[in-house]
Amino acid sequence: MTRPVTLFTGQWADLSIDELAARTGEWGFDGLELACWGDHFEVDRALAEPDYARGRRALLERHRLGVWAIGAHLVGQAVCDRIDERHQATLPPEVWGDGDPEGVRQRAAERMKDTARAAAALGVEVVTGFTGSSIWHLIYSFPPNDFAAVERGYQDFAERWGPIIDVFEQEGVRFALEVHPTEIAYDFPTTRKALAAIGDRPGFGINFDPSHLAHQFLDPVPYLQEFGSKVFHVHIKDSKRFLDGRRSILGSHLDFGEPERGWDFVSPGHGDVDFEAMYRQLNRLGYTGPLSIEWEDSGMDREWGARDALAFVKRTDFDPSAVAFDAAFAGGED
Amino acid sequence: MTRPVTLFTGQWADLSIDELAARTGEWGFDGLELACWGDHFEVDRALAEPDYARGRRALLERHRLGVWAIGAHLVGQAVCDRIDERHQATLPPEVWGDGDPEGVRQRAAERMKDTARAAAALGVEVVTGFTGSSIWHLIYSFPPNDFAAVERGYQDFAERWGPIIDVFEQEGVRFALEVHPTEIAYDFPTTRKALAAIGDRPGFGINFDPSHLAHQFLDPVPYLQEFGSKVFHVHIKDSKRFLDGRRSILGSHLDFGEPERGWDFVSPGHGDVDFEAMYRQLNRLGYTGPLSIEWEDSGMDREWGARDALAFVKRTDFDPSAVAFDAAFAGGED
Amino acid sequence: MTRPVTLFTGQWADLSIDELAARTGEWGFDGLELACWGDHFEVDRALAEPDYARGRRALLERHRLGVWAIGAHLVGQAVCDRIDERHQATLPPEVWGDGDPEGVRQRAAERMKDTARAAAALGVEVVTGFTGSSIWHLIYSFPPNDFAAVERGYQDFAERWGPIIDVFEQEGVRFALEVHPTEIAYDFPTTRKALAAIGDRPGFGINFDPSHLAHQFLDPVPYLQEFGSKVFHVHIKDSKRFLDGRRSILGSHLDFGEPERGWDFVSPGHGDVDFEAMYRQLNRLGYTGPLSIEWEDSGMDREWGARDALAFVKRTDFDPSAVAFDAAFAGGED
Amino acid sequence: MTRPVTLFTGQWADLSIDELAARTGEWGFDGLELACWGDHFEVDRALAEPDYARGRRALLERHRLGVWAIGAHLVGQAVCDRIDERHQATLPPEVWGDGDPEGVRQRAAERMKDTARAAAALGVEVVTGFTGSSIWHLIYSFPPNDFAAVERGYQDFAERWGPIIDVFEQEGVRFALEVHPTEIAYDFPTTRKALAAIGDRPGFGINFDPSHLAHQFLDPVPYLQEFGSKVFHVHIKDSKRFLDGRRSILGSHLDFGEPERGWDFVSPGHGDVDFEAMYRQLNRLGYTGPLSIEWEDSGMDREWGARDALAFVKRTDFDPSAVAFDAAFAGGED
Amino acid sequence: MTRPVTLFTGQWADLSIDELAARTGEWGFDGLELACWGDHFEVDRALAEPDYARGRRALLERHRLGVWAIGAHLVGQAVCDRIDERHQATLPPEVWGDGDPEGVRQRAAERMKDTARAAAALGVEVVTGFTGSSIWHLIYSFPPNDFAAVERGYQDFAERWGPIIDVFEQEGVRFALEVHPTEIAYDFPTTRKALAAIGDRPGFGINFDPSHLAHQFLDPVPYLQEFGSKVFHVHIKDSKRFLDGRRSILGSHLDFGEPERGWDFVSPGHGDVDFEAMYRQLNRLGYTGPLSIEWEDSGMDREWGARDALAFVKRTDFDPSAVAFDAAFAGGED
Amino acid sequence: MTRPVTLFTGQWADLSIDELAARTGEWGFDGLELACWGDHFEVDRALAEPDYARGRRALLERHRLGVWAIGAHLVGQAVCDRIDERHQATLPPEVWGDGDPEGVRQRAAERMKDTARAAAALGVEVVTGFTGSSIWHLIYSFPPNDFAAVERGYQDFAERWGPIIDVFEQEGVRFALEVHPTEIAYDFPTTRKALAAIGDRPGFGINFDPSHLAHQFLDPVPYLQEFGSKVFHVHIKDSKRFLDGRRSILGSHLDFGEPERGWDFVSPGHGDVDFEAMYRQLNRLGYTGPLSIEWEDSGMDREWGARDALAFVKRTDFDPSAVAFDAAFAGGED
Repeated sequence: MTRPVTLFTGQWADLSIDELAARTGEWGFDGLELACWGDHFEVDRALAEPDYARGRRALLERHRLGVWAIGAHLVGQAVCDRIDERHQATLPPEVWGDGDPEGVRQRAAERMKDTARAAAALGVEVVTGFTGSSIWHLIYSFPPNDFAAVERGYQDFAERWGPIIDVFEQEGVRFALEVHPTEIAYDFPTTRKALAAIGDRPGFGINFDPSHLAHQFLDPVPYLQEFGSKVFHVHIKDSKRFLDGRRSILGSHLDFGEPERGWDFVSPGHGDVDFEAMYRQLNRLGYTGPLSIEWEDSGMDREWGARDALAFVKRTDFDPSAVAFDAAFAGGED
Repeated sequence: MTRPVTLFTGQWADLSIDELAARTGEWGFDGLELACWGDHFEVDRALAEPDYARGRRALLERHRLGVWAIGAHLVGQAVCDRIDERHQATLPPEVWGDGDPEGVRQRAAERMKDTARAAAALGVEVVTGFTGSSIWHLIYSFPPNDFAAVERGYQDFAERWGPIIDVFEQEGVRFALEVHPTEIAYDFPTTRKALAAIGDRPGFGINFDPSHLAHQFLDPVPYLQEFGSKVFHVHIKDSKRFLDGRRSILGSHLDFGEPERGWDFVSPGHGDVDFEAMYRQLNRLGYTGPLSIEWEDSGMDREWGARDALAFVKRTDFDPSAVAFDAAFAGGED
Repeated sequence: MTRPVTLFTGQWADLSIDELAARTGEWGFDGLELACWGDHFEVDRALAEPDYARGRRALLERHRLGVWAIGAHLVGQAVCDRIDERHQATLPPEVWGDGDPEGVRQRAAERMKDTARAAAALGVEVVTGFTGSSIWHLIYSFPPNDFAAVERGYQDFAERWGPIIDVFEQEGVRFALEVHPTEIAYDFPTTRKALAAIGDRPGFGINFDPSHLAHQFLDPVPYLQEFGSKVFHVHIKDSKRFLDGRRSILGSHLDFGEPERGWDFVSPGHGDVDFEAMYRQLNRLGYTGPLSIEWEDSGMDREWGARDALAFVKRTDFDPSAVAFDAAFAGGED
Repeated sequence: MTRPVTLFTGQWADLSIDELAARTGEWGFDGLELACWGDHFEVDRALAEPDYARGRRALLERHRLGVWAIGAHLVGQAVCDRIDERHQATLPPEVWGDGDPEGVRQRAAERMKDTARAAAALGVEVVTGFTGSSIWHLIYSFPPNDFAAVERGYQDFAERWGPIIDVFEQEGVRFALEVHPTEIAYDFPTTRKALAAIGDRPGFGINFDPSHLAHQFLDPVPYLQEFGSKVFHVHIKDSKRFLDGRRSILGSHLDFGEPERGWDFVSPGHGDVDFEAMYRQLNRLGYTGPLSIEWEDSGMDREWGARDALAFVKRTDFDPSAVAFDAAFAGGED
Repeated sequence: MTRPVTLFTGQWADLSIDELAARTGEWGFDGLELACWGDHFEVDRALAEPDYARGRRALLERHRLGVWAIGAHLVGQAVCDRIDERHQATLPPEVWGDGDPEGVRQRAAERMKDTARAAAALGVEVVTGFTGSSIWHLIYSFPPNDFAAVERGYQDFAERWGPIIDVFEQEGVRFALEVHPTEIAYDFPTTRKALAAIGDRPGFGINFDPSHLAHQFLDPVPYLQEFGSKVFHVHIKDSKRFLDGRRSILGSHLDFGEPERGWDFVSPGHGDVDFEAMYRQLNRLGYTGPLSIEWEDSGMDREWGARDALAFVKRTDFDPSAVAFDAAFAGGED
Repeated sequence: MTRPVTLFTGQWADLSIDELAARTGEWGFDGLELACWGDHFEVDRALAEPDYARGRRALLERHRLGVWAIGAHLVGQAVCDRIDERHQATLPPEVWGDGDPEGVRQRAAERMKDTARAAAALGVEVVTGFTGSSIWHLIYSFPPNDFAAVERGYQDFAERWGPIIDVFEQEGVRFALEVHPTEIAYDFPTTRKALAAIGDRPGFGINFDPSHLAHQFLDPVPYLQEFGSKVFHVHIKDSKRFLDGRRSILGSHLDFGEPERGWDFVSPGHGDVDFEAMYRQLNRLGYTGPLSIEWEDSGMDREWGARDALAFVKRTDFDPSAVAFDAAFAGGED
């Protein structure tokens, strides 16, 4: 198959980029989707140091690795969120600052604009990431929601992200929201509303990750049929439901990997996602960008799993057909 | 069947108690579970007016209706919750006060103590209701939860409800938490943790409502097997999943009744709850208290539905067996 | 429920209308959907005899029966079909004539125009029926179809039915195609194409009969969501799949009722149709027209079944909700 | 429906026949299938006392009850079984005698011959019952079975029951084996082998009881298609699987009614049996004999259940169709 | 496994046999099932040119390929079909001739006799193919079928194919009908009727292709149990159902590969066919002939797919057991 | 993965240990679980001949094979069983002796003590095996069981095996019962009762084999959650259900491999066992012992299958995770 297979580095930030590139190059990956944390891709340095971005490319090329996208999930999350102590643990100190919520949100928005500029410096056209959401906590309507307040959440998203996307479009870079619970869009209706709120802009689209749909009982194929033109990037990640009448689909306030959870992330091909159906629909859409493995499985050795996942994608992804079968019947026997 | 069938009046607070008692008596209900809002059962008047509670009983008896429990969901919810504008819409003004969150929580706690006293005045032994939760918003762990903070949520619950339950036990009344998303307990592990936090006290137990388990894919039978000794009261309510690959089990930030939702409440017997399995397990537990219909179905005429629900329960509930079958074989033929 | 329940008389044409009206009136039906065959409703007499239509109304009223639609399936079928000996068995002799296919089709088209005029004379606004199809025999593409020929089939339909619908619209009557295999529309894509071919005209719509969708594995709810505005009339009919690895879903060239068939028509409520989901969606659409039982079950006594079906609909259909539930919570406690 | 509904009295032997007949007559049963134990139908008295059989008929007729069959399960069981203490508890003392196994088996065989004679005296043509089996204990092949020994078990059955069936045929009575685990036939292959062993005799057939098939995952329809000509009598009894990954289909050496069992008997219509499919197939076979409720549900009040079961059968059984539907279409519109 | 794996060349007729043999030999196929169209195997040349057949064998052997069967689907289809323009596109001009239907059918029948002779010349014992059907268009009985006409269709098949099979038997060759919709046999009852019509002749049997059963919900195992003795050849082909309530199992008059279809052909191992169950049953039958991959998947690159399919069969097919397990236990421990 | 993969030699006793070790070493197994029958591991020689055990180790090491357990199923079975001719076929002559049941049971018990001593001589810490059961024949309660008799069966087990386990504990060896129908424990409740009867002793535990649970519809994960601390050894074996409404889950008194059976043993990965779920739970338990393939599939070539099974385990087993994923997010972007 001709689609490159990359690894998203976000879950490997405990390793230096040098070490990670060496390993993944050896394992046979085609490239990396660099996370904007750890030392993998540092937005501030990319803007401040003229050689930084070129150096990152050179480092990757030494291991025969390309780069098609960078990931800015943690800072993006803070743009719309109700800020709490969890954000402090995941934001750069200068974005967190004094932790005043509105100040955090505004600094995060500025950092996202810088991320677009840094992506352009690196020469990639896609930044994947999260948007956060001011209304996620209203997920279950009790005490009963004022649904006008829900609508204001989509508007808040549009107001905060519009100016960021202006910068993305100026830089020739596109932001790809990973549709995901806790974000402004996590399923069909919320994707529709988020896209309607921000408008059909070339700079804003979707990082399609089927693992976040599967535990919601959502099917990737109709999602891609409806929103395919907005899919800028694709994650290969899987999740699995473990429902036996005793485990809740809601997660039970338990950490990933706990045995009483009703669903969990698992290594690609070990869960409920029908990847073949997804490949076929990506083929129909003509998507030729990377398939980026975001590897997360609390019950499996990470290196064994990353290689297993790479082999899985290489073995199962395929190109679309180039022939019409009935054509072979035409013309008769002579 | 000998278990009485009551109607929870919380969804009928637009009707006066006089009118509601007249109608439900005519329809054939055995009693009402009075909500502590509208004019159905007013806690402050029950404490202030010596004849109030007796008057309510008399009103019900005129329509051949009994009362075994009162419901205090709205005030209970405020005891642990992160307070927002939604609570203002559902709380009595004197509990809301100036809306300062900690003040609201403390006034709600005091009102719950009064509710125990009022229940005793009415002569009922069970108050059903909600507890609220300081950690509900952490339901999906992103940004990653500090799970020590989750544990502190159960502790907060125990600290706030312990003194309330002291009053319940003094009054000879029991509080029955309706296990439900947005509450401190909503599934198996959270029920375990909540019960462990507050201790095995006679004054704190469960109002078992299977509709809140069904959309989580939870089975009422093992729930009752594990927690049956703490079940003080039972709701008859149903919910149904409408999962077709396009509708999320999480609800999509849509109001109940919206066609794009992945699940919804429906009239009893029209959804996914296996009531017969529940009756059989209640029989094993020896539960002889009321089966209280909490009627809620956004797509069905309310009066048609309430009568349909009453007929459903009267037709399907049954007593346990009083004979051992093999006994009939013993003794031989002549 | 306020929707009237009628019986489609097409499968009872062995009985005179007098006898059938007497029986169905006694059983409790609200009305009849008169078939345009047997002596139930004779189009030629309705146009030729000034009192005929009024007489039919009077006859029904004597048995407290209304009429909201007439059914013209057999003649409609011949308008687009490839004509064979089966049509001779089901057409009036003067429509069959010499049996030359194009002549039959044209005479059938003229008779359909007369049917619109007769419906107007009777004072009903809906004619249910079939369209036939010139391309049904291409259902399985082997030898490989020329799909341009399939498209020409939709065009043929539009050309033949356009002038018929002109007359319907002049008469203030609407034609409701029973979407059904062997017709120009039988599922989602074919309904889309048929409606696109003839244009969005007020005189052409759908007689929704879920039994023809169920054996195709089609869900009535999304069908009604997409095409609901074109649904002019509703049939209550059921079908059931009997798939055990040995019975084909295609029917095996076996007559209805044969035990080796993979699916069959059954009395309403005895099959795979989810009528409650259908009622809820009809409620959302505001459909208040008749629910017309088309009774067909090769394995059940007809009279037992018709009464069972009437009781089923009366017991299960319901009105939509007139209240918003959360409203009851607002306002607080005292 | 015209098939009579009877009650098998075997599980009610703690009640005298006078009392049971009075109750069941009042509940609306059409008749009783009398058990040959308790005082319901005493084989020895029926042979010894000239008026006994006539007296039983008269007693039933006083309560408008008929009788079409008697049940001799307990004695029949002993004909082929490996005898142990459990047989002593269920056999008449004179059949048990000294308990020597071969002697018990031979006395049981003689008593079965008497049962045929007693049935003839009562004027019924069917005796339902069990055969026992010398090979049931070989159900799981470990230590590995010698399968020639299994074949000898069928032969043993044929040798012991052949002379009994001779008497049945002389008396004009038929023995209907209730196909059931622990008997010589309990599923498809064992029924085939048992019938092959004893030969296609008019005096030996099947009492069809779907409850014993359902927990084995067997479908009544193909069973009736294959063996329908040998079905002499039908039981209405239900069973339900409770499989959740923790409960074994094998029963766990637990008594009926224990909550950890993987399946159990339940009141008709409360379990896994598809009675409608069974009725349709019985209609195809032309079976017009009794539907005899064998009521057994360890979790339900017996009298509530028996009446619920009677209402269930009366509501759901139906006659076959007497018309061909397409016939109504023929003839055209004229 | 010892069964050879071949490729049916029918869908590759756009490639010359030279090129196709070179590629498939390199990929590791064991042989080819040559289609009688394109230049793969030309019946007329095989009869006219003494060296033609030997030349084809030699060509294959150069690439280490065997040949066990040839495929004559297109001409066979015309023997019984109602002829239309689709046949012109798939027949040799000299068979089509002037296109008069009966003439086409008779010339096709003669060509099938020649095909038997050509197969003998090539030294293969099996010709796979289609029969066509004069009654396929009656698949859905509306207007209601005269089922005597359906029976005449089986008779027509027997009359037209009897003389063809005479020649096959004279030549020592067998015709293997690929059971398939649009053919005289496509499921269980139609196979029974077709075999009954033509009689149990050694020259007429089945080319078993499970992909045509799967979308009909038919199970290959009972099919092989019932008809296994008539299976002369096996195709490895797969199909998959995509049923989501919006896609019809009937195919919607859409071409293969269209996303709205309810089922489609897919590369082996990517669909609903349980090949392992099929292999096990073939092993029980003792089938040691070729497993011939008929590759067709509108959404997959053809060469990638053919190699994937070959690897799938080589990896999953296996020989039957040669030992009895319990034997190993016998003999005891020392 | 670091868990060794061994082959249980019990089903290969027709081969000498020399030949089997040569083959399995070449195929890549890590070791053998030696059966105590054939010449694989001879308990009497191991006790009588000082060099025997050391010789066996040396033989295995020559083929790079380890040994972690020996299997004593056949003798163990006789300790509690009701003895019949099947035991004679599987016991050493000196254990069978004169075949008097109680004598056989006592000699088998003595041999099990010797087996513990022989295991110690070989230097392995685990003996796998069966216990037999005096109550297996009561599996279906008809004639109705006296359930006190069932309880006495567990007591009989404890009395017979207690002294054997004394010797095991003295020798530092543990007995691992393969939970299995026909044994004292075969599912959840029977495992609970057996463990309760014998007490929580270090010398008695479980050889976990999921194939014996799958056909009972039991889930390995909750089994391991409840009994994991007692799991001393693990078998890799699979079973598959073939339920189609005609095949009984009870096995029909048919030998393994017969096509009419409702379930059968199959090669690992070809059946219903979810091995990945099992590995994950074994990882949670910290189990690092052997995964021992007990290969049994009546429909597959034995050598092909053993290698297929080895490859299956090597490809699918994996180590647990050594990292916490969220850790990678912490620290922010700086």
